[in-house]
Amino acid sequence: MTTYQRLVLASRPQGAVLATDFRLETATVAPLKDGQVLVRNHFLSLDPYMRMRMEDVKSYAAPQAIGETMIGGTVGEVVESKHPKYAAGDTVVGMLGWAEMGVCDGMQLRRVDATHVPLSAYLGAVGMPGMTAWYGLTQIIAPKAGETVVVSAASGAVGSVVGQLAKLRGCRAVGIAGGAEKCAYVVDELGFDACIDYKAGNLAADIKAATPDGIDGIFENVGGTIFDTCLARMNPFGRIALCGLISGYDGEPMTISNVRNFLTMRLSMRGFIVSEHIELWPQGLGELGGLVAGGKLKFRESVAQGLAAAPEAFIGLLKGRNFGKQLVKLV
Amino acid sequence: MTTYQRLVLASRPQGAVLATDFRLETATVAPLKDGQVLVRNHFLSLDPYMRMRMEDVKSYAAPQAIGETMIGGTVGEVVESKHPKYAAGDTVVGMLGWAEMGVCDGMQLRRVDATHVPLSAYLGAVGMPGMTAWYGLTQIIAPKAGETVVVSAASGAVGSVVGQLAKLRGCRAVGIAGGAEKCAYVVDELGFDACIDYKAGNLAADIKAATPDGIDGIFENVGGTIFDTCLARMNPFGRIALCGLISGYDGEPMTISNVRNFLTMRLSMRGFIVSEHIELWPQGLGELGGLVAGGKLKFRESVAQGLAAAPEAFIGLLKGRNFGKQLVKLV
Repeated sequence: MTTYQRLVLASRPQGAVLATDFRLETATVAPLKDGQVLVRNHFLSLDPYMRMRMEDVKSYAAPQAIGETMIGGTVGEVVESKHPKYAAGDTVVGMLGWAEMGVCDGMQLRRVDATHVPLSAYLGAVGMPGMTAWYGLTQIIAPKAGETVVVSAASGAVGSVVGQLAKLRGCRAVGIAGGAEKCAYVVDELGFDACIDYKAGNLAADIKAATPDGIDGIFENVGGTIFDTCLARMNPFGRIALCGLISGYDGEPMTISNVRNFLTMRLSMRGFIVSEHIELWPQGLGELGGLVAGGKLKFRESVAQGLAAAPEAFIGLLKGRNFGKQLVKLV
Repeated sequence: MTTYQRLVLASRPQGAVLATDFRLETATVAPLKDGQVLVRNHFLSLDPYMRMRMEDVKSYAAPQAIGETMIGGTVGEVVESKHPKYAAGDTVVGMLGWAEMGVCDGMQLRRVDATHVPLSAYLGAVGMPGMTAWYGLTQIIAPKAGETVVVSAASGAVGSVVGQLAKLRGCRAVGIAGGAEKCAYVVDELGFDACIDYKAGNLAADIKAATPDGIDGIFENVGGTIFDTCLARMNPFGRIALCGLISGYDGEPMTISNVRNFLTMRLSMRGFIVSEHIELWPQGLGELGGLVAGGKLKFRESVAQGLAAAPEAFIGLLKGRNFGKQLVKLV
């Protein structure tokens, strides 16, 4: 009997997530049925959306069940297949969760080519986070060359792609990140025009200085004061893609006071979930894959080692301790 | 020499508008130049947007100048014309401001037919307020039959049209208004399915009871707590047409706390100014005029008598003391 480790949700967090909200268990692989595939996961993706799923509240998806394997995107290698489209050795993307191995229907997998794009990138710039950036930027903000786009959590898996795609479209890209090191990376390595350190204590003045022509598009990942301060700089007919509100995921107040600007500046805002726009993934992932393979879209990863490290890595992600895409290496 | 009375802005309000912010003056009609038209105004329209124009802040339009005639929509009769398209006796809509008479270019006028639609309605249900309702409902909320649409300031010039148009499109129309008398009018005479008295002290519970299937569209005229409370009832993919924020026009805080719902429910919101969508006015006013002429779109007016009554009538409008469209009768 093959066994593997998995992490289940032990309890729902009260405020900040604790390592004790998860429990490591040993599971056994059952014999495959027809149509099923056994995958050994190489990398697990940790993403902010998981925090919302841990709550038992009405949202766009059912809450994560207590005692079940935590949900999550994975890349790995097929170990055994009873599905005609997959064979042992295939590299695949799936949603096998916080686990070293997993069995799933072939329908839930996507074969990927790790020749020109590193396997882990299919969880980042060429995966759900990259697609999130692509969708919000191209379908909601839809910036014209010369416009100014601001993105929070700019060094992260989503934000880093937003700014680079905006630059490729001829925009002024301005990031917001926490700390001088992340800001230097966003400007020097990712090529943003400017990046504001929200921890430096001069948020409003720094945003104003970095956006001399105002803001035409906001890609919002954080919410709270950062979002509210950006709203005050919006130009007429500005667009806001609301992707995440990580500053409020532990229950902090998530108020905005610059509501008047929505009216006086005729702003539009839309919240979105990229998994609801699957029809655009081939187009978006095609562009992103080409850019990564061609060295025109850069990314950085924080890699935790081994499944047992996932809870602390996830807690760090929610506190902004990661630098770039947060992964867990499983083999 | 023909003289007339006009009201100019004497000072910018500090908080609530005072009657002393306006000054009554006597003006003289200059001889007409070629292309000009002299109009005697029968009615002046008082509208919430004027409050925002009184502030010297960046907005969608230049601020009202101190010492100049207050801006405002008017209907009246041509007294004398040096424009080939207008003749004495024509009934016209214009923007001649808070004044008994005015001279303008013919381009700034629109001839209207008062045979089937009362002249004053061209300042209300078949004018800018009606068009505002039509645009926000049909172009932003775009409700399907069976959906629930909520509108604040429901007995007012805009809100009353929003709900009636929503009913004609097969929606559940729910109003919010101040006081039992207005709420009874909204349901019994305008035909809304329900109307909530925000002064009754049970706002959240009353909104919940009136929207058993949640809310699909909000037409927002008020802002503040009323808006925030409605946000908590939104269904997935709900749409918000942000038309006004009258509860904050004197500088009151205008915060919303239910920002998370924009994300979890994938809401979209757009602020708009109907004068920026002039290309749709013929279509919208055509529908509205037909409905009023056919008795299918009802409205109510509060009419102040004489130009000198305009400041107090305007102050009352901002405080919700009017009942239906606020006009000033000038002849």
